[in-house]
Amino acid sequence: MDSTHNNTPQVFGPQGSDNPRHVRSVIRQGLWTSHTSGLADGHVQGNLVILPEVQAGDFLRFCQRNPKPCPVLAVSEPGQFSLPTLGEGIDIRSDVPLYRVWRHGELAEEVADISAFWRPDLVTFILGCSFSFESALIEAGIPLRHIDEGKNVAMFRTNVATEPAGPFGGAMVVTMRPMKAADVIRAVQVTSRFPNVHGAPVHIGDPSLIGIADLAKPDYGDAVALMPDEIPVFWACGVTPQSAILHAQPAFCITHAPGCMLISDLLNHQLASF
Amino acid sequence: MDSTHNNTPQVFGPQGSDNPRHVRSVIRQGLWTSHTSGLADGHVQGNLVILPEVQAGDFLRFCQRNPKPCPVLAVSEPGQFSLPTLGEGIDIRSDVPLYRVWRHGELAEEVADISAFWRPDLVTFILGCSFSFESALIEAGIPLRHIDEGKNVAMFRTNVATEPAGPFGGAMVVTMRPMKAADVIRAVQVTSRFPNVHGAPVHIGDPSLIGIADLAKPDYGDAVALMPDEIPVFWACGVTPQSAILHAQPAFCITHAPGCMLISDLLNHQLASF
Repeated sequence: MDSTHNNTPQVFGPQGSDNPRHVRSVIRQGLWTSHTSGLADGHVQGNLVILPEVQAGDFLRFCQRNPKPCPVLAVSEPGQFSLPTLGEGIDIRSDVPLYRVWRHGELAEEVADISAFWRPDLVTFILGCSFSFESALIEAGIPLRHIDEGKNVAMFRTNVATEPAGPFGGAMVVTMRPMKAADVIRAVQVTSRFPNVHGAPVHIGDPSLIGIADLAKPDYGDAVALMPDEIPVFWACGVTPQSAILHAQPAFCITHAPGCMLISDLLNHQLASF
Repeated sequence: MDSTHNNTPQVFGPQGSDNPRHVRSVIRQGLWTSHTSGLADGHVQGNLVILPEVQAGDFLRFCQRNPKPCPVLAVSEPGQFSLPTLGEGIDIRSDVPLYRVWRHGELAEEVADISAFWRPDLVTFILGCSFSFESALIEAGIPLRHIDEGKNVAMFRTNVATEPAGPFGGAMVVTMRPMKAADVIRAVQVTSRFPNVHGAPVHIGDPSLIGIADLAKPDYGDAVALMPDEIPVFWACGVTPQSAILHAQPAFCITHAPGCMLISDLLNHQLASF
């Protein structure tokens, strides 16, 4: 998670990339359009979904019914581009490194600023992401193979249906992390404290019970090895709401580009429920 | 909480009042129009709010921003009167003992069945209530004075503002329970496990810090004594959303009558987050 700390890009200047407000200001100027992993370490990063008000109620209901894959950190008023509960001076039109603009479920453009697309009926959703609970697992001494090997986490579509709301629905997507038994128990404890960033696992053990045929063939991200003394542990994944949105094919929608998240002022530890 | 068990009203017949489906069927027939405390003991009871779809999005956003006073257990689709995630065969038009119909923020009628008021644009919200966490506190051996004295819990308006959403806003209302220090610590632990029924306390100690002038004069419910070795503990209260609705003065709204809750099939223990 700290990989950029040893060689912080010059674009962040002498202040470095630790302060979330400074990192957002660099991103706002269009000087950083890449992934945010390792930036403002220790701070909560969030997935972005922007929908017209006409779909926003259905989508919020979808999130309410599926809190594990869709933990809502903040929802704006229609047209509001600040997010005061997540950070001082956030302007959601410019503070994410790279955006994807979708029309009728098809990717239309990838841009570093969405001011030109802004409309007074747009509602912003920020959803929790697994970076925060991975930090907590690492601090608890639990090794995470995909991080140790510099890979993306392995993600799989399951046969577990989400609870639909309006046009939003479809199958749950999960991440998989292999662990030894003692670490599985500790990981359940640690992640149970973080319901706003996917919370406790949704499945442990036999992948076929949730419709996963082959752990060596993830649907997204990179495969990691499962050792003989390890158990695969599955968490609900933030790709689930993205997949639900593609399924719903709204006329207009904006999301972050993969890995290019909103950096908030909140500390990961502030998200712990106890 | 068990007071009705020793003398279950005859209206429940030989089956008694333990089974939530049976209790709902008696209520549905109009044979029980009183409070639900002690009925279907061990099962989750919920606060009811029904709003037209045009206000429902704002209200759900209000609940998302204020999860401690407004923990959402379920939201229906517009016009849907079943609540399959809360219980088999629930018909929200008839399964609450007593309803209040509000027009423009004024109480218009109190009725035992709302079928005559039903419209295809009505959205049903069920919010968690403190009965569930009080059960958990009692099971943890923490005495609750208002229950021991057969009183309503003491409720107070505070100077803590809720995060508004659309027309919904206003001050947070809290309940107060006096406890010895060791029980305060245990109560924080126990209720932290139940975020869907108000969760951990919002304040401990000096009432004036949250705008409460006199613990002997609650705004709702009954006063209870605070002993010299006790600390007052404050939890967010389900009166907060009711107060937010009155404040918003929607043209049409239905709630449960005080104490007359929806009885679900869920066990209180199923709500524990870990």
